[in-house]
Amino acid sequence: MSAPKKVVLAYSGGLDTSIILKWLQTEYGCEVVTFTADLGQGEELEPAREKALMLGIKPENIFIEDLREEFVRDYVNPMFRANTVYEGQYLLGTSIARPLISKRLVEIAEATGADAVAHGATGKGNDQVRFELACYALNPDIKVVAPWREWDLTSRTKLIDFAEKNQIPIAKDKRGEAPFSVDANLLHTSSEGKVLEDPAEMAPDYVFQRTDDPVKAPDAPEYVEITFEKGDAVAINGKAVSPAEMLTELNALGKKHGIGRLDFVENRFVGMKSRGIYETPGGTILLEAHRGIEQITLDPGAGHLKDSLMPRYAEIIYNGFWFSPEREMLQALIDKSQENVTGTVRLQLFKGSAFCVGRWSDHSLYSEAHVTFEDDAGAYDQKDAAGFIQLNALRLKLLAARNRRLKG
Amino acid sequence: MSAPKKVVLAYSGGLDTSIILKWLQTEYGCEVVTFTADLGQGEELEPAREKALMLGIKPENIFIEDLREEFVRDYVNPMFRANTVYEGQYLLGTSIARPLISKRLVEIAEATGADAVAHGATGKGNDQVRFELACYALNPDIKVVAPWREWDLTSRTKLIDFAEKNQIPIAKDKRGEAPFSVDANLLHTSSEGKVLEDPAEMAPDYVFQRTDDPVKAPDAPEYVEITFEKGDAVAINGKAVSPAEMLTELNALGKKHGIGRLDFVENRFVGMKSRGIYETPGGTILLEAHRGIEQITLDPGAGHLKDSLMPRYAEIIYNGFWFSPEREMLQALIDKSQENVTGTVRLQLFKGSAFCVGRWSDHSLYSEAHVTFEDDAGAYDQKDAAGFIQLNALRLKLLAARNRRLKG
Amino acid sequence: MSAPKKVVLAYSGGLDTSIILKWLQTEYGCEVVTFTADLGQGEELEPAREKALMLGIKPENIFIEDLREEFVRDYVNPMFRANTVYEGQYLLGTSIARPLISKRLVEIAEATGADAVAHGATGKGNDQVRFELACYALNPDIKVVAPWREWDLTSRTKLIDFAEKNQIPIAKDKRGEAPFSVDANLLHTSSEGKVLEDPAEMAPDYVFQRTDDPVKAPDAPEYVEITFEKGDAVAINGKAVSPAEMLTELNALGKKHGIGRLDFVENRFVGMKSRGIYETPGGTILLEAHRGIEQITLDPGAGHLKDSLMPRYAEIIYNGFWFSPEREMLQALIDKSQENVTGTVRLQLFKGSAFCVGRWSDHSLYSEAHVTFEDDAGAYDQKDAAGFIQLNALRLKLLAARNRRLKG
Amino acid sequence: MSAPKKVVLAYSGGLDTSIILKWLQTEYGCEVVTFTADLGQGEELEPAREKALMLGIKPENIFIEDLREEFVRDYVNPMFRANTVYEGQYLLGTSIARPLISKRLVEIAEATGADAVAHGATGKGNDQVRFELACYALNPDIKVVAPWREWDLTSRTKLIDFAEKNQIPIAKDKRGEAPFSVDANLLHTSSEGKVLEDPAEMAPDYVFQRTDDPVKAPDAPEYVEITFEKGDAVAINGKAVSPAEMLTELNALGKKHGIGRLDFVENRFVGMKSRGIYETPGGTILLEAHRGIEQITLDPGAGHLKDSLMPRYAEIIYNGFWFSPEREMLQALIDKSQENVTGTVRLQLFKGSAFCVGRWSDHSLYSEAHVTFEDDAGAYDQKDAAGFIQLNALRLKLLAARNRRLKG
Repeated sequence: MSAPKKVVLAYSGGLDTSIILKWLQTEYGCEVVTFTADLGQGEELEPAREKALMLGIKPENIFIEDLREEFVRDYVNPMFRANTVYEGQYLLGTSIARPLISKRLVEIAEATGADAVAHGATGKGNDQVRFELACYALNPDIKVVAPWREWDLTSRTKLIDFAEKNQIPIAKDKRGEAPFSVDANLLHTSSEGKVLEDPAEMAPDYVFQRTDDPVKAPDAPEYVEITFEKGDAVAINGKAVSPAEMLTELNALGKKHGIGRLDFVENRFVGMKSRGIYETPGGTILLEAHRGIEQITLDPGAGHLKDSLMPRYAEIIYNGFWFSPEREMLQALIDKSQENVTGTVRLQLFKGSAFCVGRWSDHSLYSEAHVTFEDDAGAYDQKDAAGFIQLNALRLKLLAARNRRLKG
Repeated sequence: MSAPKKVVLAYSGGLDTSIILKWLQTEYGCEVVTFTADLGQGEELEPAREKALMLGIKPENIFIEDLREEFVRDYVNPMFRANTVYEGQYLLGTSIARPLISKRLVEIAEATGADAVAHGATGKGNDQVRFELACYALNPDIKVVAPWREWDLTSRTKLIDFAEKNQIPIAKDKRGEAPFSVDANLLHTSSEGKVLEDPAEMAPDYVFQRTDDPVKAPDAPEYVEITFEKGDAVAINGKAVSPAEMLTELNALGKKHGIGRLDFVENRFVGMKSRGIYETPGGTILLEAHRGIEQITLDPGAGHLKDSLMPRYAEIIYNGFWFSPEREMLQALIDKSQENVTGTVRLQLFKGSAFCVGRWSDHSLYSEAHVTFEDDAGAYDQKDAAGFIQLNALRLKLLAARNRRLKG
Repeated sequence: MSAPKKVVLAYSGGLDTSIILKWLQTEYGCEVVTFTADLGQGEELEPAREKALMLGIKPENIFIEDLREEFVRDYVNPMFRANTVYEGQYLLGTSIARPLISKRLVEIAEATGADAVAHGATGKGNDQVRFELACYALNPDIKVVAPWREWDLTSRTKLIDFAEKNQIPIAKDKRGEAPFSVDANLLHTSSEGKVLEDPAEMAPDYVFQRTDDPVKAPDAPEYVEITFEKGDAVAINGKAVSPAEMLTELNALGKKHGIGRLDFVENRFVGMKSRGIYETPGGTILLEAHRGIEQITLDPGAGHLKDSLMPRYAEIIYNGFWFSPEREMLQALIDKSQENVTGTVRLQLFKGSAFCVGRWSDHSLYSEAHVTFEDDAGAYDQKDAAGFIQLNALRLKLLAARNRRLKG
Repeated sequence: MSAPKKVVLAYSGGLDTSIILKWLQTEYGCEVVTFTADLGQGEELEPAREKALMLGIKPENIFIEDLREEFVRDYVNPMFRANTVYEGQYLLGTSIARPLISKRLVEIAEATGADAVAHGATGKGNDQVRFELACYALNPDIKVVAPWREWDLTSRTKLIDFAEKNQIPIAKDKRGEAPFSVDANLLHTSSEGKVLEDPAEMAPDYVFQRTDDPVKAPDAPEYVEITFEKGDAVAINGKAVSPAEMLTELNALGKKHGIGRLDFVENRFVGMKSRGIYETPGGTILLEAHRGIEQITLDPGAGHLKDSLMPRYAEIIYNGFWFSPEREMLQALIDKSQENVTGTVRLQLFKGSAFCVGRWSDHSLYSEAHVTFEDDAGAYDQKDAAGFIQLNALRLKLLAARNRRLKG
C-alpha cells in the first residue's frame, strides 16, 4: 500500500483518536478529515469539533453528524426482524454500528477526494475487521489505515508521551489506565478488558453504566405496549414514534428496571475468546416484544426457516460482512417474512426481566376456533389427525420393520 | 385396524384415564394393562394402583414405575446438551417426556403379550403425534388406540355420565370444567386452554403452580455453582448429585426465585397456534448454566454448528420424532461436541432471572494470554490481522469492482 | 365436507379423467367445468373439448389453455435459479407443474362460481398433496374432490365397466393395463409403476420416450451457447428466445444426444419409496449451463448460502408447498443472488452428457490478474496469506494446546 | 517465528521441492528430513530417495511411505459417505489428500525431534491453508515453513538459476515453463494455470491425463456391480477388495470409459476464483454408486438431513478444516446415517457417464407392497392421505383466510 495522501478518520474527540489524528499527520504527512458521528453514545459532539480545529484540521474537513435515526432504521431494525443473537445471547450492539460508520467514512472520502480512511480499532479485536470489510465492500480502491497495527505506541506510557510531545490535551482521568474499555451507542454499551479479563470473576458493580441494579429497581412491575408494523416497532403505549425515539424510550424503561445486562464470553472472528459485559436495555425489551408479535402473526413455515438461519445471519453481522451478498440475501428472506408482522404486544418489566404477557393483531393467525378445548363447531376434524400420524409414521414403521427383520 | 385384544394404557389414575380404561373394556371387550409412571409430576402413584384394581385390572397387569432418573439421564440431559428451545423460547418440557412413556408402553406390551397401547391425548394436540410416532418407531406392528379421536364422549357432561354409569369415582372438584388443562413432570408444568385461550389476556395468577411470584421472591440474589461433565450437570455447590436429584434441586431454587415462567404462543405440528403457560424452574437455570460452561469450553466451529442445527433438533423433538434417524444423527453430532464441556459456572438467581456471572474449567479454551489488553508477550501478532482482513476482503473487493465497472 | 355443487376438474381428455368427470356427475349430481392445459405434454388439446362436449359439459364450462410460457417463466425458471435437485438428482419435473394447474383450477372456480375442484391423482402419490395444498393456499374455502381416494373403482376391470356403462369411449390400447404410468410436460416425462416396480431391474428400453438412446446418439459432440440474464436463459446460440421456446429447443438438443435420463428411487412425502424413470433433456442441459454461468458471476458468499439452502427449497417444492411463505422467502433470497448471473456458457453435448466447457460475462468476478501463475503485478500479496492462516488457525491451536494439556 | 532448526519437508523428488530442500539448508542452515508419500499419484518413489541422498539428506532422515490404503480408508471413504461435492460439482480430490500428508509430517517431526515442517504450496492457493491448518491442529507448537511465501525466487529463471548454482539436477523438460500445473493422487488429477487460465476457452485435449477421450471410448456400455457395507464400497463384481484396490479398479474402468472429467471455475478460500480441469474417474463412479445404494437403504429423515449439511461439510474440507471439531461432529452425524447403507448397485458406464440402473439390498427400505399400483392388500390406506393433507394444509388455510380478510 502506498502512503495515504488524505485520510478520513473516525474521530471521537477522545485522547486515543486525537493521538491517531496527530500520528497520521506526522507519520504520513497527510491531510486529515475528521468524522464524528452521534450514534447515541451519549457524548456531546461539539467538543470534538473544537479539538479537531485545535489539532489543525480545516473547518471544511470536520464532519459531525447525527446518525441516530439512520442507525436504528437501517441497521438495528432490520437486524431485530430476525431476532438476532450471536452465540445464543449477545444482541450485537457493537457489530451493528460499524457498517454505518464505515459507509459514511467511505462517502466522505469520496466527497472530499480522500484516498484513505482510518480507524482506532486494535489488531486483536473484531472491529478492525468490521470497519475494513465494510470499507472495501463499498470502495475496493480505498486505503484503510489502522494505526494500532502499525505504530510502536504499544504502551500507555508511550501514548501519553506522544500526546505530550504533540500538545494533545490529556484529561486528568485519562493519564492512568482505564479499568476497562467501553464502547457505546444507542443500542448498547459494552465493557471489556482489564478488570473483566478473568471470566471466573464476577463483574464489579461499577462496570454497569446503562442499567440500574435490578436489586434496586422498582419493586412493582411496569407494563408497556409496543406496536409493530411489518416487523418494526412503531408505537409505544399507543404513541407513534420514530425509530430512534423508540429505542431511546425503551432504553429509559430498560435502565429503570435493570433490564438487558449480559455477562458473556464470546468467540471473536480473529480466533480468540473474549469476555464482555453488555448492557442492552431497550434492545432486550425490543427482542422480547418482536418475538411476542411474531408468535401470533408468523406462519410456522416462515418462522422455522427464519429461526434456522438466524445463527448464520448473526455470525455474518458479527464477523463484519454486513455489506455482503449473503447478508443481503438473508435480509431479503427475512424482510419477506415480516410483511404481516403487525400488531401490538404487552410486556411486563420487572427487576431485570422483560416478559411478553399479551399480544393481539388484525394480522393474527391464531384461531381460537381451531384450538379451543370447547366445541369447535367443525373447524377441525380430529379424525384427520389419524391419517396425518399414519403417513408421518410410515417411514418409521418401514425402518423398524427393516431393523427387526435384520436382527430377527 | 382390527380390534385390539389386550391394551397397555398410559394410566394416571385420574378421572379421564379411568374413563378411558373403562371405555376400552366396554368398547373393545379387551384386557387392559395399566402403566403409571413417576416422571416427577408430583403426584403419588399408589392411588392409581388401588383405582386400577377397583376398575377390575388384574394385579399382574398393573405397572407402576419411577422413571425420574431415566427421564433426566436419557432424555432431558441429551436435549439440554444442545441448548434446545422451540421457537426461540420453549424448553420442550412436555415433548421430551412422551418418548420415554411410549418406550415403556411398547416394552410392557411386548412383555405382557398385548397387541395395542392406548393414550389419553386429544385429537387436536401434539401429544397424540408424539405418542404414536414413538410407538410405531419402536414396534411397527403395534396398534395405538386414541379414544379421544374415536369416542362420542365429546362434552364434559357426557364424560361425567359415562363415569357415573360405570361406577368410576369422581372427585368433587372434577365435576365441573377445570379452568385450564395441566401437564407436569420433573422438567416443567404446562397450562393451557379455557381461561388461557385469549393470547391478548394476561394469564391469571392462579395458573402458576411451580414457581413463586417473582414479585414476592427473595429480595436478595442467591448464588449457585453448577458443575458439568461432558455437557451434563453433575454437581451443585460442589456436591455430586444424580441427574434427577440435580433437576429436583434446581427446581427448588427456581421455584423460590420465581424463575422459568413463559407465556407463549406456539405452532403445533398439527397446524394451529396454541397458547401455553410454561413453568420450567430448574430447566431455565440449567440452560443458562450450560450456555455459560460452553462459553469457555466449546470451540466456535463446534458451537456455531450446534447453534445452527438446534432449531431443527428442537422441531424434531417437538414434532415427536425422538426415535428417528435424524434425531439420532443430530444427537451423535451434539454429543461429539460435548466431550470437553466440563467445568463449573456460578449463577445469580434473582426475582425471575438466572444469569451466569462466572465460569471456570480445566478444559477452558479462554486464553487470557491472547486476549489481554496488556502486553501479550508475543502470543498474538497483530500484523497477522492485516493479512486476515485482506483475504477475507478480496471477494468483496472483486464484487465492488465489478459492480462499479458495470455502473460506470 | 358437504357435497360439491359445481366442480372444476383437471381434465386431460383421457379415459381416467373422463371416468372421473362422469363419476362426479353421477355421484354428486354436480355441474362439471373442465380445465385442460397445455404444459408441453405433447398432446393435442382439441380432442379434449370434443370429448367434454360429448360427456355433457356446457361449452362455456370448457376451459382449454396454453400455459407453456407461464409454466417456464414463473415456475421452471425460478426453480432453476437455485440449481434445484431433489435428493441429489431429480429435477422435479412433475412437482413444478402442479402449482400452476392448481392456480388455474382455483381461478376458474372463482370465475365460474364453482365451489370445488377435482383432480385425478391417486391416494398413494405426491400429486394429491401438491394439488390440494396449492388449492387450499390459494382459496381456504375451496373443496377438493379426489375421486381415487373416494370411489370403489379399485381395479382396471371396474373402471372399464364403469366407462362402458356410462358410454365413455375407450381407446383400444387402454383396455388392458398400461405397462407403466406416465406424466409429461415441457420439462420432463416421468414413468413409474408396473414393470418398473423392482428397483433392482434395469428399466426396459421401451420406457424411454423423450430421449434417444445415448448409444445411438450422434458420434460427434455438438456445442451450444446459452446466454443468461439475471439467472434465466434468454438466448441460444445468440438468438433471443422466449422461456418456453428455450426449453423446447433444449429439449430437441437433449433428445438427440440422449441427455437427461435418470433411473431413480425417491422418498415420497407420503412416506414410501418409489422408483421412477425421469427424462429431462432440456432441463439437464439448462442445469449444467446455469451452474456454469454462476461459476464466474456469483460470489462465494452468495453461492455457498444458496447451495446450503437448495435441499430445503427442493424438498418444499417436492412436498407441494410452492405457495407457502417459506418457498416465497427462499425465492426472495435466491432471486436476490441472481442479479448479476448474466453471461454466456458453451456446452458440449455428447452421448448422454452435457458439460460446460467455457463461460464468459461482463459480470464476471473471475480475475485473471489475481489468480495467474504469472507475475500478478501486485494484485495479490502472498504475504497476506500468512496472517490469514494464522488467525484461522488460532482456535485450532488453542484446542490442540488444551487437549495436550489435559492428556499430559 | 524463530528460525527452524530441523524441518520435515513434504518432498516429491521433483525440481521444485528439491529447490526448497536446498533453500531450507542454505537459508536456515537447518537439518532437513524428507517425507515422500505414495498417495497413488502414479510416480515411483525410489528416485526421490536417491535424489534426497544426493542433496545431502541423511538416510535416517528419509521417509518414504505407501499411504494409499490409509488415504482411501480414512479420508476418501468417510468423505464419500456424505456424497460430498464442493460448489455442486467438484469431488475434492486435492483437498482430501492434504490432511493425511500433514498428519504424517507432524508425526515424523515428533518422531525425529524436528521443530518445523515445510511444504511446497504457493501463497495464492488453498493448499498452503490446508497444510498449515492441519499441522497446527495436530501440534500447536509446530513451525510451518512456506518457502513460496518467503523467498525471492519469484520467476522460473530465478528458480533455474538457484538450481544450477546448487547442483540440483534439472530434467530437460523442466527448464521451460510447464503449460499447466498438475496435482495427482489415487482419487484425482487436477490441472490448472497457464493455458487454462481463460475460463472461456475450452481446455486443450492434451490436458487430460487420467481419462480417455469419451469420443474414443468403447461404443458399448459396460456394467459393473459395486457392493457397499455401512456406506463404504467393499466389493466389485462380487469380489471383495481393499479400499485402495477398489478405487484403483474403478479408476481403470473410469479411464476406459472417459468418466469423471470436470471443467470447473471454483472459489478458493483465499478469495479468488480459479479454473481447474479435474479428472476423477473412479470417484465419479463411486459417487453415483453410493447415491444408488442410499436410495433404497436410507430413510428420508436421514437422507434429507445429510443432504442439507453436505455443502457445509464440503466447504469445511475444501477450506482445510479436516482436523476441526465441526468436521468431526459432522462425521459423527454422517457415519451414524450409514449403519444400514449396505447392499449392491449396478452401474452402466458409457462414453463419459456412469448411471445407476439397479440396486438391491437386505437392508432395503423400499416396500413394493406399499408403492405398488396393484392391489396392496391393505398395506396402505389411501384414506389416511386425506387427513395428512388436511393437517398439512391447515396453516396454509389460516394464512389464506388472514390475507383475504385483510384485503377484503
